[in-house]
Amino acid sequence: MPVETVDRLGQELDAEARRVRADVDSFFAKLLAPPGDTREKLFEAMRHAAIGGGKRLRPLLTIAASRLFAIDRNRALRVGCAIEAIHVYSLIHDDLPCMDDADLRRGKATVHTAFGEAEAVLAGDSLHALAFEILADPETNSDPWVRCELVLELARAAGPSGMAGGQMMDIAGEGAELDLAAITRLQQLKTGALIEYAVEAASIMAKLPPEARRPYRGYARNIGLAFQIADDLIDHSGDATAAGKPTGRDASAGKATFVSLLGEERARQQAGFLVTQAIEHLSGHASEADLLRAIAHFAIERDH
Amino acid sequence: MPVETVDRLGQELDAEARRVRADVDSFFAKLLAPPGDTREKLFEAMRHAAIGGGKRLRPLLTIAASRLFAIDRNRALRVGCAIEAIHVYSLIHDDLPCMDDADLRRGKATVHTAFGEAEAVLAGDSLHALAFEILADPETNSDPWVRCELVLELARAAGPSGMAGGQMMDIAGEGAELDLAAITRLQQLKTGALIEYAVEAASIMAKLPPEARRPYRGYARNIGLAFQIADDLIDHSGDATAAGKPTGRDASAGKATFVSLLGEERARQQAGFLVTQAIEHLSGHASEADLLRAIAHFAIERDH
Repeated sequence: MPVETVDRLGQELDAEARRVRADVDSFFAKLLAPPGDTREKLFEAMRHAAIGGGKRLRPLLTIAASRLFAIDRNRALRVGCAIEAIHVYSLIHDDLPCMDDADLRRGKATVHTAFGEAEAVLAGDSLHALAFEILADPETNSDPWVRCELVLELARAAGPSGMAGGQMMDIAGEGAELDLAAITRLQQLKTGALIEYAVEAASIMAKLPPEARRPYRGYARNIGLAFQIADDLIDHSGDATAAGKPTGRDASAGKATFVSLLGEERARQQAGFLVTQAIEHLSGHASEADLLRAIAHFAIERDH
Repeated sequence: MPVETVDRLGQELDAEARRVRADVDSFFAKLLAPPGDTREKLFEAMRHAAIGGGKRLRPLLTIAASRLFAIDRNRALRVGCAIEAIHVYSLIHDDLPCMDDADLRRGKATVHTAFGEAEAVLAGDSLHALAFEILADPETNSDPWVRCELVLELARAAGPSGMAGGQMMDIAGEGAELDLAAITRLQQLKTGALIEYAVEAASIMAKLPPEARRPYRGYARNIGLAFQIADDLIDHSGDATAAGKPTGRDASAGKATFVSLLGEERARQQAGFLVTQAIEHLSGHASEADLLRAIAHFAIERDH
């Protein structure tokens, strides 16, 4: 790509990413408004976790992918927010003392640190349920078939065959010598499944049958892996302030990562290769796929 | 009702309840079969919690209510199992050290005691997602509108406006002097919402619009409260072996309950009144509602 194109796409991506962050914050502020009773602390805990932080990669992916099919941006945003609700719930639970025991997340106190452990469990559980409530609501899509497919695939991506299963693999792998195949499979479940869903969701809204959704899942699978390698590189050599969380944790936990297995140089090369592959999956699309191309391109060019 | 009718209904209810327990166990044994990889412990923890215990009141209610509309029993069973998955996940999370810190549940070790705390969080999260996967699956119902309504109402019943919200009210109420109105509202969210849904689900499968589902919700609201009063009475004066869990916990925790507020005698009267009200909601139905009548009748005639 010519340098001017890269610059232009970078600016377009920045603008859309900023807009998505603001829109997701507004959505959650409305959804999680104070209930006016003794559930207040639960809603406060959810707002703390769901508003004002994070890259919002998943909603950004859904909105970028929805351009391929000229899907209404507000409808794509609702689906993106459902995915983000799942992502945020998983962060709250992953941070619990019995899991990663983390004090800091997105540069703020974790939910259990700020609100208590029981409240953190319940805030996660509540966001989990809300994700499905958002998707099944007719406001998200007028076609019940679309809503059902959105629910079905999100449940698969979040549950024991997806994110929660990957988290179990991660726990089971502690202290074990995982090889590249095991790490890749773990990542594909733990973070990959939800990222794949974020892109596939747009093709579901376009009413594509499962076989026709494959290129979009392929794009997402590649950038999901590339993102994970970039995260490992940041943890390996990054700056805690820019990352908004402590770095160097994988190495001190003796955890195998793409970087520990491949070395820094080969890990960077592999991430670059995955981005190229991701972009190839979009070859059937013209400029409407530019935002997805830009996300792939900049996925690995970041420090947080 | 004549004594013979009560006896006959009691026998019919026993037989159907036994059948439902066996069917729910089979369903979960199939759903949670060993995955053959490092997620084994997660699936084992889910099987431990989901198979071989509990009254299965919620699936029984869905199946009993489905008789009103001549709904296929297998389809009703799938919906009942989705509800039971939510119920079981909530028990796993409620038992965690940061919540009730319980060692015993349904006469067995709790999940975190037997498998570890992180595994218990993940087993709960996994069952939560599986509930929605079951409902959105075309095998549950061929009509996407029905599946969507089932998902939407279950998400509402399980989330911050239902079960999870009620659990927060329970935590927030610890040490406070709750009155009857506050306890009723807490119970309606914490356990009532899911019991209401269990009955409403059958009317959704019958494609009734929300207004027409009201009597069935009314029946369920009344027996949900009656069940809670019966539970409080068991905790107040019951036998730990029959209950399968420690009793006397509410009093020792200084928790206000229907029994502590009303006294044992008036609590029993109130439960009886609720059962009468519940049965009145079924006045539009003939013998196809007998099983629901029997459940209401025997709800308060139990020691566990």
